[in-house]
Amino acid sequence: MQTACTYRIVLIGAGNVATCLGKALKAAGHSIAQVYSRTERSAQALAQELNSPFTTSLNELSAADLYIIAVKDDALPDIASEIRVKGIIVHTCGSIDMQVLKDCSKSFGVLYPLQTFSKSKEVDFSKVPFCIEASSDTARKIIENAARSISGNIHRVNSEQRRVLHLSAVFACNFTNHMFTIAEDILKKENIPFSILLPLIEETVDKVKNNSPREMQTGPAKRNDTEIMKKHLEMLSGDEKAQELYRLISAKIANSD
Amino acid sequence: MQTACTYRIVLIGAGNVATCLGKALKAAGHSIAQVYSRTERSAQALAQELNSPFTTSLNELSAADLYIIAVKDDALPDIASEIRVKGIIVHTCGSIDMQVLKDCSKSFGVLYPLQTFSKSKEVDFSKVPFCIEASSDTARKIIENAARSISGNIHRVNSEQRRVLHLSAVFACNFTNHMFTIAEDILKKENIPFSILLPLIEETVDKVKNNSPREMQTGPAKRNDTEIMKKHLEMLSGDEKAQELYRLISAKIANSD
Repeated sequence: MQTACTYRIVLIGAGNVATCLGKALKAAGHSIAQVYSRTERSAQALAQELNSPFTTSLNELSAADLYIIAVKDDALPDIASEIRVKGIIVHTCGSIDMQVLKDCSKSFGVLYPLQTFSKSKEVDFSKVPFCIEASSDTARKIIENAARSISGNIHRVNSEQRRVLHLSAVFACNFTNHMFTIAEDILKKENIPFSILLPLIEETVDKVKNNSPREMQTGPAKRNDTEIMKKHLEMLSGDEKAQELYRLISAKIANSD
Repeated sequence: MQTACTYRIVLIGAGNVATCLGKALKAAGHSIAQVYSRTERSAQALAQELNSPFTTSLNELSAADLYIIAVKDDALPDIASEIRVKGIIVHTCGSIDMQVLKDCSKSFGVLYPLQTFSKSKEVDFSKVPFCIEASSDTARKIIENAARSISGNIHRVNSEQRRVLHLSAVFACNFTNHMFTIAEDILKKENIPFSILLPLIEETVDKVKNNSPREMQTGPAKRNDTEIMKKHLEMLSGDEKAQELYRLISAKIANSD
């Protein structure tokens, strides 16, 4: 999915998203002109990995075609308020309106990768959905070109759709991961490794690749097996929050037809 | 993982588990001597698929080496109370004690596949963890041989460990699937297909293959981003149960270090 267009890109942020995105963009042939982070150590570490200069001052941003602000959602408004650049500027957040960037540059937009990033784990970007929004057709073209150079899964979405995508991702990813954490905690009591659940988890995901999750629901709550559910609640005694969660999700499953 | 031992097997039950297990055992070279279901249509359908006889009467079970009761947990005690056979008899339930079978035969046990089954989808049994319990060494040997003929992932577990495994599976599979259902419902409001979340879901699972899920937790609750969480709760207004769930899981994530 390489394109002929390569850009000078400045990365603002040096966390998980900036790291993963920076590596992928560099590998796609773009030039990472600079890395910014408030913390010198973080800026330096990522800059070294990308073989690029770095800065800790938003007043010293290099000239570039594209500025990508990849910081935590709650840090974005403050950072945006300090930036004035001539190139196109985008942020990567799920839940923040594109207009937060309106004073940063004439041309702005959003490049939201619908994915979960860890610094320690490479992400295969080729299938990551990139949700794009732009203040103008010119901006859109460049943002889309940059996204297409690393992924074949590009979507145009407005700010409201992006917010909805982010909320759905919290359930599908963050809350799902917490279900795994609870399962791991339960198994620990009997010294059973979490890995025993992996084939089950993989099948659970495999089933929703071609079917609606609602139709794939199984388990005691789905078949209203009150005896088993009672036993499970007893086994969770001593952990009121887990019991409350078990009750709530089971009730939602039972009423979800 | 084929073994030299092949058995005459009677399947008691014709639901998802019986169907998937029956097909795999037949493919591994065992002879399905008979299928029982209370409902003639179900018995006949599975028997036809397995090219075996069927019955709807527990008094007419054929002679066999191994009887596998694969019925819903809440149906098991009643069915067990009606069976008297000479071969080894097992059930496939996660949460029911092995002793429920003590009057069915001299030799009994449990063959619990830690997996989710749908009639419509073939399961690759080679990696399915089979959790085995037996009333005697002789019974264990035959149950393990049967399990090994279809899977390379065999575990000896007692009834308490099996109950714990089942409870953990409810969180890791059933509740996870419900998180997907909620995500799908949220996306429907903006006419966005659930499939856009699949790369994210796959990565979420990929991360816990080599890491503890607790360490892989990301999202607004993990980084205590109260602004985003407030927005998400507003977006869920009109669905009190979903709001309650969002609050509860977020609080659990925040307190889960």
